[in-house]
Amino acid sequence: MIVILKQNPNASQVSHLKTWLESKNVKIHESVGDSHIILGLVGDTSKLDIDLISALDIVEDVKRVQEPYKNANRKFHSEDTVIKVKDMQIGGGTLTVMAGPCSVESEEQMITVAKAVKEAGATILRGGAFKPRTSPYSFQGLGAEGLELLKLARLETGLPIVTEIMEISQLPLFEDVDIIQVGTRNMQNFNLLRELGRQSKPVMIKRGMSATYEEWLMSAEYVMASGNENVILCERGIRTFESYTRNTLDIAAVPVLKKLSHFPIIIDPSHATGKSSLVEPLAMAGIAAGADGVMIEVHNDPEHAWCDGPQSLNLENFKTINKKLISLHKFLKSEEE
Amino acid sequence: MIVILKQNPNASQVSHLKTWLESKNVKIHESVGDSHIILGLVGDTSKLDIDLISALDIVEDVKRVQEPYKNANRKFHSEDTVIKVKDMQIGGGTLTVMAGPCSVESEEQMITVAKAVKEAGATILRGGAFKPRTSPYSFQGLGAEGLELLKLARLETGLPIVTEIMEISQLPLFEDVDIIQVGTRNMQNFNLLRELGRQSKPVMIKRGMSATYEEWLMSAEYVMASGNENVILCERGIRTFESYTRNTLDIAAVPVLKKLSHFPIIIDPSHATGKSSLVEPLAMAGIAAGADGVMIEVHNDPEHAWCDGPQSLNLENFKTINKKLISLHKFLKSEEE
Amino acid sequence: MIVILKQNPNASQVSHLKTWLESKNVKIHESVGDSHIILGLVGDTSKLDIDLISALDIVEDVKRVQEPYKNANRKFHSEDTVIKVKDMQIGGGTLTVMAGPCSVESEEQMITVAKAVKEAGATILRGGAFKPRTSPYSFQGLGAEGLELLKLARLETGLPIVTEIMEISQLPLFEDVDIIQVGTRNMQNFNLLRELGRQSKPVMIKRGMSATYEEWLMSAEYVMASGNENVILCERGIRTFESYTRNTLDIAAVPVLKKLSHFPIIIDPSHATGKSSLVEPLAMAGIAAGADGVMIEVHNDPEHAWCDGPQSLNLENFKTINKKLISLHKFLKSEEE
Amino acid sequence: MIVILKQNPNASQVSHLKTWLESKNVKIHESVGDSHIILGLVGDTSKLDIDLISALDIVEDVKRVQEPYKNANRKFHSEDTVIKVKDMQIGGGTLTVMAGPCSVESEEQMITVAKAVKEAGATILRGGAFKPRTSPYSFQGLGAEGLELLKLARLETGLPIVTEIMEISQLPLFEDVDIIQVGTRNMQNFNLLRELGRQSKPVMIKRGMSATYEEWLMSAEYVMASGNENVILCERGIRTFESYTRNTLDIAAVPVLKKLSHFPIIIDPSHATGKSSLVEPLAMAGIAAGADGVMIEVHNDPEHAWCDGPQSLNLENFKTINKKLISLHKFLKSEEE
Repeated sequence: MIVILKQNPNASQVSHLKTWLESKNVKIHESVGDSHIILGLVGDTSKLDIDLISALDIVEDVKRVQEPYKNANRKFHSEDTVIKVKDMQIGGGTLTVMAGPCSVESEEQMITVAKAVKEAGATILRGGAFKPRTSPYSFQGLGAEGLELLKLARLETGLPIVTEIMEISQLPLFEDVDIIQVGTRNMQNFNLLRELGRQSKPVMIKRGMSATYEEWLMSAEYVMASGNENVILCERGIRTFESYTRNTLDIAAVPVLKKLSHFPIIIDPSHATGKSSLVEPLAMAGIAAGADGVMIEVHNDPEHAWCDGPQSLNLENFKTINKKLISLHKFLKSEEE
Repeated sequence: MIVILKQNPNASQVSHLKTWLESKNVKIHESVGDSHIILGLVGDTSKLDIDLISALDIVEDVKRVQEPYKNANRKFHSEDTVIKVKDMQIGGGTLTVMAGPCSVESEEQMITVAKAVKEAGATILRGGAFKPRTSPYSFQGLGAEGLELLKLARLETGLPIVTEIMEISQLPLFEDVDIIQVGTRNMQNFNLLRELGRQSKPVMIKRGMSATYEEWLMSAEYVMASGNENVILCERGIRTFESYTRNTLDIAAVPVLKKLSHFPIIIDPSHATGKSSLVEPLAMAGIAAGADGVMIEVHNDPEHAWCDGPQSLNLENFKTINKKLISLHKFLKSEEE
Repeated sequence: MIVILKQNPNASQVSHLKTWLESKNVKIHESVGDSHIILGLVGDTSKLDIDLISALDIVEDVKRVQEPYKNANRKFHSEDTVIKVKDMQIGGGTLTVMAGPCSVESEEQMITVAKAVKEAGATILRGGAFKPRTSPYSFQGLGAEGLELLKLARLETGLPIVTEIMEISQLPLFEDVDIIQVGTRNMQNFNLLRELGRQSKPVMIKRGMSATYEEWLMSAEYVMASGNENVILCERGIRTFESYTRNTLDIAAVPVLKKLSHFPIIIDPSHATGKSSLVEPLAMAGIAAGADGVMIEVHNDPEHAWCDGPQSLNLENFKTINKKLISLHKFLKSEEE
Repeated sequence: MIVILKQNPNASQVSHLKTWLESKNVKIHESVGDSHIILGLVGDTSKLDIDLISALDIVEDVKRVQEPYKNANRKFHSEDTVIKVKDMQIGGGTLTVMAGPCSVESEEQMITVAKAVKEAGATILRGGAFKPRTSPYSFQGLGAEGLELLKLARLETGLPIVTEIMEISQLPLFEDVDIIQVGTRNMQNFNLLRELGRQSKPVMIKRGMSATYEEWLMSAEYVMASGNENVILCERGIRTFESYTRNTLDIAAVPVLKKLSHFPIIIDPSHATGKSSLVEPLAMAGIAAGADGVMIEVHNDPEHAWCDGPQSLNLENFKTINKKLISLHKFLKSEEE
């Protein structure tokens, strides 16, 4: 960490600061220039509070050289994290395809979709039981009943299930879920993250609508700091000025997070764009960029289904697209050898 | 609401859609053009799910004419909401000044700051007991103990207190708090909003980092839909590409929300900019734009306080600035007459 | 186009508006609801000025159903535009690889890089002679001399050249350039676009830093409206809150623009990220998403070159990466069959 | 400037870098830490190319302590720039009100508006003769004829005129204009800026849609570096995700630019919001935040004018609002004493 002091700082405050820094087991390299004094801090600075230091009257600016996340950091954890769910793996060179409806609606719907996506090569079943909705008047999901229907579909197909949690009090209901999803609006619900770190199921953290890579990794750090190492990251688009697509898929997130951290990265082209016609090209792009998998919305009966977003594929389309994704992944692996 | 159908839509789907819309007590005005059919929907469309309709195969686009929020809407609630806290009012032409430290640290700190800000003309005492922190390694606030210190300061000065809640389970601790603050990261924590609607204390909702006006008002709608009409909105800056300031204060939010809704609007220049030197000009701007008040971070002892952000003012500066704010407010009121 | 009138509009103004619209050869379908009157306009509305209509006192909102661009519109030009440069094609299923240094520096540099990128499979040579620089004190490019060096390198290798124009007065110097590039800061330099439409060389328009798809296509429309149909679009990242990468590559631009328009689309991963380690994954993603080509910065001598950006690849890396890009493109074409 | 080297850098490259830096008359303070070497550069670093240094293989990051602009910098030019136009001043404690129509349409319109805004207290007449329009099919302004009408209105009222230039070749037409405006889309048209620096008329630079403060000041630096010190800055809103207003007025720009630089700052609430009802509150906010003036669109005959944007005020409204602005400015000045 580098601390740049203001011009002509108060000497007693400088000495105060240095004493405090040394008490935190940080070594100080001081460099006195014509206009500024620069303190280079050496040691474990990941636990120093950067806001706290910038706040000081004598400090002009603070710059981290080390990242503020440690458990999430590739530098201190060089191997890829591979998540094990039942007999399958997420990460480590495999292709994960999470597919299923936006909302769980009925037993018939879930069984139909689950069977179809499994046959098409999906590896995990997704479906929303608790739905975060902008309007209090919109359908809020089937809740606990939806979770039961997901489990029924798992029983029928063998596919592990991933579904979103919205608050701490729901945790007991998620004991038999395979992967717990943290939605974009909860990415910085620190209390929830801490609790999810105290249990052992894999946690998939969707990127906040306007979260930086660093903030996203700090959320993963919350889960890991509480003891759970099974974290998956899901890029689902960020909010920008462009309104043609619902969000802007940040494809660079894939290689950047692979470099900064060690987690599996999933791409969600359905939410990123809000348009089913864009799911295929963006899923292909995600895999070509090195993502470990994709999350895709699939519905069974577009003619009658009232709750399928415009971003959902029907079963037929999903089958066609997933074949291409699997084929691309296989090609890319063969090229590596 | 206007529904634009795609070219040459499937006739049975169109008829299906019309039947469904009529079952929702909406009247349909159909306009058949050369290239598109347009359905004008008349009646209470605020409870129609726009995503659901856009999702249909035959629909090209949907446009609301009516806003999706109803209780929060100025059109259905033409008078300003005035919040009563003890013997004071927020809104209705008064000037509210919420002041106090970022974090509650100690009894001495709270009593000192509370007395000073009261003397300087502040009307409400702020202070964080539960702190949302990006890093799991940063100080997370004094918690329940912090709430007790706030109450002590209230006892000492008579100032009502406002402080942030982070999750539903903390609600019982907030029973004796005067105004409950929902932080920017929780603006779309719908479960929390719903619970806050089930109690009667005023709720101040800070704008999410990348929330649109409509999303923000929908969050207020959540609270009102559950029964609590005492909502205050607080603009605290949005996230943009400009990184010189921590956030970008959206000053237009003040007149826009005054027009669209009926809530008191507070401006938080401290968090919006992250720089204490910008607090005065932005607080002045907020009041000139018609805000009902400001929220300002104030600390007592910048030389020794480790937890004061660079956005905090010291007691002396706050006194000087608050005098100007009160004077400006008085001038603007006199001009109106 | 749909015009939504305000509640209880002034009758003479409504009649005034209708007369004016009819004088523009637009048919009007009127739909009178309880709260609003809606006018559905049918005919060629692409030349109506939407701002002008929204400005009227009686108008609440205007919504286009038709796009404001016509020549650029896929609906009126269903076949892909294929650009012919010497004996090669851009678009139409081919893979275009534009490679070369950020700035033209010397004859030796240009010849070395040109030969190397040609051998590695690049199809077009890039290089900046006129450089848009944020600072007046930075190197502004070799100018006319730089153009001569590019032509020398073309003579040596046979590779067509693409380079950026910065103002109208430079046009005569570009007579012997193969593709004229309009930089991101000039995307809405309408005078320049109009002039480029009056000559016949292909024009590659880079997306403005915060340009919407529609604005970008309107810039292409300027060129086409003046008579030049040879337009190429280049996505080079947009400005967002994320500062780890220089810009955020908007990968969805590829399929979206393929759908809305008929131009070849090139991806520039070098400028989009500002980091050479991200060039490979993003170039791969671009091709997988359906781009017609990539534009990549390549330098010859990273140890001594002072003017190569951190986004440049060296010759060796480019060779390795380009092999992968060509192989991926071949694989994707084989899958289509 | 601080240069942070990568871990274990190549020694000969480090020595190469140091030699080069010293040749630029920069002194180097080296600080060797456990993990990184930090070079603190002292001297005039404003002319060092930061991109060029970051590009080096051995460099991890570069951080400026000094700003890259020099002439524009408050640190080297502590007094406020005051622009003299005829017998009036812009900056230096005065209130400048630029008012007039979006587009110059006719002699009658210009004379009517000019007389009315003068009577209402405006100090400068604005009006567009060359109009940057997104669509090639929209009205592009009256051009040279429009400039003549502006001059006629000046003759009639004595008000100085400000109007936008779009390309270098128009410069001769602007010889008799009082203030030359550079529009938002030309903020980084460096060739144009350089030419405007070679003449002596005041240049008002509008902020680019997604320009940072630093980029904006660098554009001012271009003008000053070519010899013209008469620069005015105009904040007109930036592009964000919020689409209710056309742009987001960044009110913090006023105090920030007052601190970083010495130019007069004008606020344009008409373009910033695109809504006439927001002009008053945002103009008031701008003045309260310390702006030197406002730029407001005013039209004469909203019922018949086809080219007035929804952001224009009519003559009556402008009169009422301007009275409030002048009164607020007077109040704020009296408070200072």
